[in-house]
Amino acid sequence: MNWIINSLLDTDFYKFTMGQLVFRKFRDVRVKYAFKNRTKDVNLTKFIREEDLRQELDHVRTLKFNRTEIKYIRGTNEYGDQMFGEDYIHFLERMELPPYQLAYKDGQLVLEFEGDWHSAIYWEIFALAIVNELYYKSLMSGLSKFDREIVGAKGQLRLAEKIKVLKENPDIVFTDFGTRRRFDHEWQDYVVETLAGEFPETQFRGTSNVALAMKHGLFPMGTSAHELFMVLAGIAGDADENVRRSHNDVLKHWWEMYGWGLSIALTDTFGSDFFFRDMTKNQAKEWKGLRQDSGDPVAFGEKAIGFYEVCGVDPRDKMIIFSDGLDIEAIVKLHKHFKGRIKTTFGWGTNLTNDLGFRALSLVVKTVEANSRSLVKLSDNLAKAIGKPEDVERYKRIFGYSGNNYLECRY
Amino acid sequence: MNWIINSLLDTDFYKFTMGQLVFRKFRDVRVKYAFKNRTKDVNLTKFIREEDLRQELDHVRTLKFNRTEIKYIRGTNEYGDQMFGEDYIHFLERMELPPYQLAYKDGQLVLEFEGDWHSAIYWEIFALAIVNELYYKSLMSGLSKFDREIVGAKGQLRLAEKIKVLKENPDIVFTDFGTRRRFDHEWQDYVVETLAGEFPETQFRGTSNVALAMKHGLFPMGTSAHELFMVLAGIAGDADENVRRSHNDVLKHWWEMYGWGLSIALTDTFGSDFFFRDMTKNQAKEWKGLRQDSGDPVAFGEKAIGFYEVCGVDPRDKMIIFSDGLDIEAIVKLHKHFKGRIKTTFGWGTNLTNDLGFRALSLVVKTVEANSRSLVKLSDNLAKAIGKPEDVERYKRIFGYSGNNYLECRY
Repeated sequence: MNWIINSLLDTDFYKFTMGQLVFRKFRDVRVKYAFKNRTKDVNLTKFIREEDLRQELDHVRTLKFNRTEIKYIRGTNEYGDQMFGEDYIHFLERMELPPYQLAYKDGQLVLEFEGDWHSAIYWEIFALAIVNELYYKSLMSGLSKFDREIVGAKGQLRLAEKIKVLKENPDIVFTDFGTRRRFDHEWQDYVVETLAGEFPETQFRGTSNVALAMKHGLFPMGTSAHELFMVLAGIAGDADENVRRSHNDVLKHWWEMYGWGLSIALTDTFGSDFFFRDMTKNQAKEWKGLRQDSGDPVAFGEKAIGFYEVCGVDPRDKMIIFSDGLDIEAIVKLHKHFKGRIKTTFGWGTNLTNDLGFRALSLVVKTVEANSRSLVKLSDNLAKAIGKPEDVERYKRIFGYSGNNYLECRY
Repeated sequence: MNWIINSLLDTDFYKFTMGQLVFRKFRDVRVKYAFKNRTKDVNLTKFIREEDLRQELDHVRTLKFNRTEIKYIRGTNEYGDQMFGEDYIHFLERMELPPYQLAYKDGQLVLEFEGDWHSAIYWEIFALAIVNELYYKSLMSGLSKFDREIVGAKGQLRLAEKIKVLKENPDIVFTDFGTRRRFDHEWQDYVVETLAGEFPETQFRGTSNVALAMKHGLFPMGTSAHELFMVLAGIAGDADENVRRSHNDVLKHWWEMYGWGLSIALTDTFGSDFFFRDMTKNQAKEWKGLRQDSGDPVAFGEKAIGFYEVCGVDPRDKMIIFSDGLDIEAIVKLHKHFKGRIKTTFGWGTNLTNDLGFRALSLVVKTVEANSRSLVKLSDNLAKAIGKPEDVERYKRIFGYSGNNYLECRY
């Protein structure tokens, strides 16, 4: 049997950076992750057999890190010397993924992961890659041999077109962020290996996929995810002020653990307007930059530049990582728009690793509960919001979510 | 072009453990290594084109460690935490192999490597694997397609026979030491992968080949080589007493750098009788064990047991690694002979990775000069001796080489 996931490193690097923080600081938090298909008109239960999905998920639970994988983690130092400690590595060597809960209910695929945050955290990317790949496998199995070859040819030509444009714009810096929604592992591998062959590391910075970074000797890339902000807000207690304060606590914990090396802040969990009110002048100075993951990227970038200026920081020393639904046109446009004003880099996902002619799905696995409290994400695009309606309203109030806030520096 | 050496990790682990010691303590020593074909009736110049050999050697000089390989080295901890320091890793990242000197002279292949010990040290295994593989390539190219397939089939059957016997003797513990004289890289890879699949790690302990240990998640195995004793004796100065003392200096340096983890002493550089007179009672107690690499292995083992008993050490707590020209019969015989009396393990080389019906060559690359002084190795089998006749005589005198010494404990 050819399994979809064959290594616990076949995941995004940020699962380990977040994983260590959770392991060290939030070991006793119980969380629930839920799978969600945002592409509502595609009913996955019609394409994926429950039994196949179970087999793949079961197989992931049998995997262990081998000696080489553990050494790779121990030897990782791109963001700081011995950034992963022996306590955490020892835990990884023994780590077991908690059970999953899967049901095909009312024609919907319901998939949840409940357990201690420090081990449940690793399910996200495996589950997304598996569901995604089973879906495209199903589409491919309906095609003739020749038509399947054509899919590959189309993927190659589209990749060639991207490469051509990027070579015309050699100062665009980008990264593969496409593990979770890749067409399949083999295709992502092909794309990453091709990019590594076509570009110097100064332009193609690397990949978020740890197994592929290891295989090809590339830079493992990653920032952090909404779950940190969501869970810390959820466990902050009843008082609004505690919930509000938890946002900056995430930044503090992160800085304390990784310092400058990994200091790219994700900005949109409770809306970027709140983010810019919450990040302190000192943080603005210290942190490398920001990640934009929802809403209007140009408006965000302008806001970020304004924010840095108000804080007395030269925005040209700072960086924005754009990572929301990029394609080559958006990348070129954003790069040109901000050139010389603020550094940019592009975390290119779905459209990089799943552009072979099929429509891409928008699948996510998100934290929905922590210690039995419902969690909330607002984001700069309410279509991406997560949470019960009453909780969303409460969070909008707590975080002053309006979309129309003046820029100010907190200190 | 399919190169023979594609990674600077495609070498024996001990090159790195020795390499770090040399880098830290003997950086300024100039050495010369010379290739030697001990299979005198095979004239390699008739099988290997000088141009092909040059191309392969030149290609090795273009290789660099990639990010993953460096992480692997940094993350290696089987013999101690962070056993390779950042100073040494930093050096490896920039390391360049010194030039080689190759000539086809009087029908002989003359191949030497001269340079700073700390970078020349890496040539040994690459050079041996290249010459060996070019020789067997040449033999294979004379065969029909079917006959080449038969070679593979023969190799598989012989491997199967070895596996059968080892499964009948599950308490035999062994290791692949066959990089330098393998049939080719692909075959060694196949053998190692097969053994890893057939045996638990408690029986097949791992491989000395770092690239294969990395590829298959195995234990990288290694001890140390004669060159440490030879070079330190060579640079010890004129006084006999200094030359004699240099032997124990090697043990002291090694212990200081790696401690118990790597404390397997190579015993035969100047004869094992001298070794047993030189190793102190304290060293006998502290070190894990001994490596036997020439002479009669049964006689050696008996001597070792006697030595430990005279030193007041229970030999059952100690280990002998046999590594001299093993085949499955010798392994079983030695294992049975010493069972319950002293621990044994087997570093299986040529006969493991080059047993496909062709006769194996006995090729070596040895240090012959250090700081312009000629070097000497005696070994427990004078056919393996290295050095000018007058130097060999002098060393025999210095080290009391007779082959008939009483056992005694130095303290």
